[in-house]
Amino acid sequence: LTPATANAAWDVASLTRFLDGDHREVRQRVRTLLADPRFACHRDDGQGRRRQVLERCTVLASEGLGRLHLPRSCGGAGDPAAYLAVVETLGLGDLSLLVVFGVQFGLFAGSILALGTDAHHRRYLPAAGRFDLAGCFAMTETDHGSNIRDLETVARYDPATESFVLHTPHPGAGKDYIGNALEAHMAVVFARLEVAGEDRGVHPFVVPLRAAGGGILPGRHVEDCGGKAGLNGVGNARLAFDQVRLPRESLLDRFGRVSTGGTYTTPIESPARRFLTMLGTLVPGRVSVAAAALSATKRALTIAVRYGAGRRQFGPPGAPETPILDYLVHQRRLLPPLATTYALHFAVRHAGREVLAAFAEGRTGADRRRVDALAAGVKAVATWHAVTTVQTCRECCGGQGYLAVNELGPLRSDVDVFTTFEGDNTVLLQLAAKSLLADVRGELEKSTRLDVLRHLARPVAVRATTATAARHRLRDRRFQLEALRWRERHLLAELGGRLKRAVQAGEEADEAFLARQDHAVEAALAHIDRVVLEAFAAAVDSCPDFSFRPVLALLCDLYALGRIEVAAAWFLEHRYLGPHAARALRPQINALCADVRPHALALVAAFDIPDAVLAAPIGRP
Amino acid sequence: LTPATANAAWDVASLTRFLDGDHREVRQRVRTLLADPRFACHRDDGQGRRRQVLERCTVLASEGLGRLHLPRSCGGAGDPAAYLAVVETLGLGDLSLLVVFGVQFGLFAGSILALGTDAHHRRYLPAAGRFDLAGCFAMTETDHGSNIRDLETVARYDPATESFVLHTPHPGAGKDYIGNALEAHMAVVFARLEVAGEDRGVHPFVVPLRAAGGGILPGRHVEDCGGKAGLNGVGNARLAFDQVRLPRESLLDRFGRVSTGGTYTTPIESPARRFLTMLGTLVPGRVSVAAAALSATKRALTIAVRYGAGRRQFGPPGAPETPILDYLVHQRRLLPPLATTYALHFAVRHAGREVLAAFAEGRTGADRRRVDALAAGVKAVATWHAVTTVQTCRECCGGQGYLAVNELGPLRSDVDVFTTFEGDNTVLLQLAAKSLLADVRGELEKSTRLDVLRHLARPVAVRATTATAARHRLRDRRFQLEALRWRERHLLAELGGRLKRAVQAGEEADEAFLARQDHAVEAALAHIDRVVLEAFAAAVDSCPDFSFRPVLALLCDLYALGRIEVAAAWFLEHRYLGPHAARALRPQINALCADVRPHALALVAAFDIPDAVLAAPIGRP
Repeated sequence: LTPATANAAWDVASLTRFLDGDHREVRQRVRTLLADPRFACHRDDGQGRRRQVLERCTVLASEGLGRLHLPRSCGGAGDPAAYLAVVETLGLGDLSLLVVFGVQFGLFAGSILALGTDAHHRRYLPAAGRFDLAGCFAMTETDHGSNIRDLETVARYDPATESFVLHTPHPGAGKDYIGNALEAHMAVVFARLEVAGEDRGVHPFVVPLRAAGGGILPGRHVEDCGGKAGLNGVGNARLAFDQVRLPRESLLDRFGRVSTGGTYTTPIESPARRFLTMLGTLVPGRVSVAAAALSATKRALTIAVRYGAGRRQFGPPGAPETPILDYLVHQRRLLPPLATTYALHFAVRHAGREVLAAFAEGRTGADRRRVDALAAGVKAVATWHAVTTVQTCRECCGGQGYLAVNELGPLRSDVDVFTTFEGDNTVLLQLAAKSLLADVRGELEKSTRLDVLRHLARPVAVRATTATAARHRLRDRRFQLEALRWRERHLLAELGGRLKRAVQAGEEADEAFLARQDHAVEAALAHIDRVVLEAFAAAVDSCPDFSFRPVLALLCDLYALGRIEVAAAWFLEHRYLGPHAARALRPQINALCADVRPHALALVAAFDIPDAVLAAPIGRP
Repeated sequence: LTPATANAAWDVASLTRFLDGDHREVRQRVRTLLADPRFACHRDDGQGRRRQVLERCTVLASEGLGRLHLPRSCGGAGDPAAYLAVVETLGLGDLSLLVVFGVQFGLFAGSILALGTDAHHRRYLPAAGRFDLAGCFAMTETDHGSNIRDLETVARYDPATESFVLHTPHPGAGKDYIGNALEAHMAVVFARLEVAGEDRGVHPFVVPLRAAGGGILPGRHVEDCGGKAGLNGVGNARLAFDQVRLPRESLLDRFGRVSTGGTYTTPIESPARRFLTMLGTLVPGRVSVAAAALSATKRALTIAVRYGAGRRQFGPPGAPETPILDYLVHQRRLLPPLATTYALHFAVRHAGREVLAAFAEGRTGADRRRVDALAAGVKAVATWHAVTTVQTCRECCGGQGYLAVNELGPLRSDVDVFTTFEGDNTVLLQLAAKSLLADVRGELEKSTRLDVLRHLARPVAVRATTATAARHRLRDRRFQLEALRWRERHLLAELGGRLKRAVQAGEEADEAFLARQDHAVEAALAHIDRVVLEAFAAAVDSCPDFSFRPVLALLCDLYALGRIEVAAAWFLEHRYLGPHAARALRPQINALCADVRPHALALVAAFDIPDAVLAAPIGRP
């Protein structure tokens, strides 16, 4: 065993550089800032805590970190990837700060950038990027969270005064859980646009909330949401509007415009497609959430792996007690999540590049759908992984893990909300499945069900008749990839076929989908499993440093076999795995855990979380 | 669908009576008390909160609820089952209060009862039972949590002064996370007894901590553990002792006694068996924890099911939106956990009866081992079920679920600790496996491996060749029971065989077990699956009210098929399930969810949690 990082047989710093990849300089700047005494954590959850987080956000803004994604013409750097790197790195620290930062620069400034036009950009973005104009993003309503299409806040155009009248028709139509709304001076508010008596669907408006002195402007109601399960450094509020008059320019009009005389024009005629295009601006935010959730997971694993390597309990008579991480069951609890964290690291990076490229290139149709599915799926998988892993880390640290000072409890409570905000995970997976289905539909329309299934015939099905053959096959990267690819394609083609036959039999398309929701969610998860393994495998292949490549390859095996084990019943049912291969999974995973164990400390050290950020005393190296 | 409880086709109140079972009167008293305005929840987590919890505990004590398990001669009612009913019902409310209550009356008074003798009982129990003597239970040390045998606090007998000298030799030997220690006047402290230079192993002592006025006595150090992830209404502290002199009567001497002259005598000669017998006093506490965790789960499910039935999102065009609990994926998230909660309800009751009977009858050997395994396993399974279910409930309530006022976040943070206190779940499952192995050992010693496996030959193996046959088989209770029984016996016999061969091949017995820890944990979980299904099936069979029996039978099917689905790969590998049967699991579970859905509101109403206890606004009926 190699108990200490310093004794690792490979260079931790070079793995950190490999993990950091692009924008290393800005990542290092954020790490250094987070380790600054000004960013040391407080436990006070009242107003003082919120003020403190705002002050820290001001520091980040003054370092220019909040405007990297904004155009150069608005004071930014025109570099969305750098901004994403900042968000990912902030996820290593206080998640309240991350959320306040993300709401201000990602959701508020980002939506003005994506949904507004030149005049809006020039008018608002410079101040927003400096945090001189504090904003919030008011989409969700009390009665409408996932179903944004049916929001009920109304903005009626009044040609006589050339203004909109923004109104909350009933309490359930109030904007709810709005982050930063307790301090924001402006909100981007989503409301149904009514022009000349016609409902044009949901549109975004910039709405001043407070006067320069901080007083709430007339017609706006702001109510504190009160304590939350976590993230109490973020102020959340309910907003309601009582016949608030907004000038015509308040409409962020990239996708819908109202002339002075009250004529509505839009570059996207189909209301459904227009709505989806506007919602598309949320897509990069989903990758940010996935990246930040993963950073929080890295922090939890760093704490738990270090505690597990140092904490001794039981042991052979007369000898020192054994570090708990040397026990098989402890390894099985922590090391597969560590492997998944590495796997998701590369997958989220891949998703970030894809999403930013899709936006930069203005991709549409199938190319765009694929990216949306990727972002939605990766967000769901990474955030659920975060919640379960932080919980496991807490349990693996026992009583120490339960003390607030050791961070795991508060971290779990903070990261929890990621599973439902920026899109509920279950809803996102269904969106992803619908996008993926659109791709197989063409295929299905050309062929009968049997053709499709024949087309998917198992290329490398395991019918290994000996345990040794099964073992070799399981450790073969091509087998692992083919298995996850086959499962994804099979689940999707089968779902497509079931839906097609249901519709042919007279079911409504929506009803047919709803009756097969579980199948759709499973297909989306299988898609992400495959994407993640491909991204990890590609990273291992592209890995420049041969000294740590074997360790990454072990982690990649551990991830792959873990995913195959979770779906083992499915693979057996479909006779893709034979009983010999299925039975070999568990000992193979155990063996991989034993192989990874000596590298565990170095693998968490490679996350390079500064000691000052890793506030937990039990998490210190 | 039957949206409202009032429209249930069966009588909710009679199901409540069936669930309550024994000691209904005391359960109702506790429900009424918890609903009393004096017990209304506060969110303040500082000292005020702790004081409030202590005041409430005083109210419970003044109602006589803390001494029901104590002997009549000491002011009690001699009714441990009634005490367990109180603890279970308290789990519906504030878990900080539950823990303060459990530490005082279960751990502190309970250990004096179990480990002390007449003089201790007469001297301490009346005041402890009235909460006039506030106590705590100091077993865990900073360096020793699970491995209690190696505790390092020392109590050396000094015959010259006829007293013990209690000492903490180094900081790691300090007593840690000790609940109620910030206020307790006395502690039961576990320390290594040293008599005439000989280490007699861990023994319990009663140790005064504070003077009548509240000041800490000389030689005792009490340090606040600070904020915790949850349960901040409980004060936890670290205790250390600096050469504290204790009179000879301080030793709780039921299992080990020191004469004035310094002669050690014990009714149990084997130190290992003596230690295990003393630890056995923790066993009833494990059932209490399981029962309380389950009550917390019932509270979370009540909130989430009611929210899911009332919350509408999306829907067919032109029609009202659909309650989210009508969606298949939402049902799949909430209704199997509801079924498991019912199943565990009956299993925990069964475990409680068994444990109390074993103690009352002084069972030993195999009879006692079986009960210990049951308590350990049920505790592990019920507490993990609680944590995952409360988290699922939180997510199923979206943003509302994240608000502190809706209780799910704080509840999850509170219930979390149950997975590692009163025995870490992973350690407990290994204890359970060892107890169970002892039972199969005799069998194995008489036979070769092949004989044993032949003995386990599948009695009702599913080789159904049609989907319809598979479906019928899956819904057959005898099949479900046989499947779980076969899996348990197969895993245990296989584990026993592997261990036997390993030892024959020269491995140390402990080493051999450690190398197969994952197998042991799986066997213990399989054991509990079987026990739980048997308990639920027996409850359905014994159910006096035919109107709700079919609903319980549906829940029992849902539980059973859920357990079979989790282990589906194993059943397929071992050719106990054929692919047809395995494939039928998912649609069968979906169909059961649809069947249970109309009863969901009534099923949570049957938990009978008073509105005032269910403080969450979204959880009101």
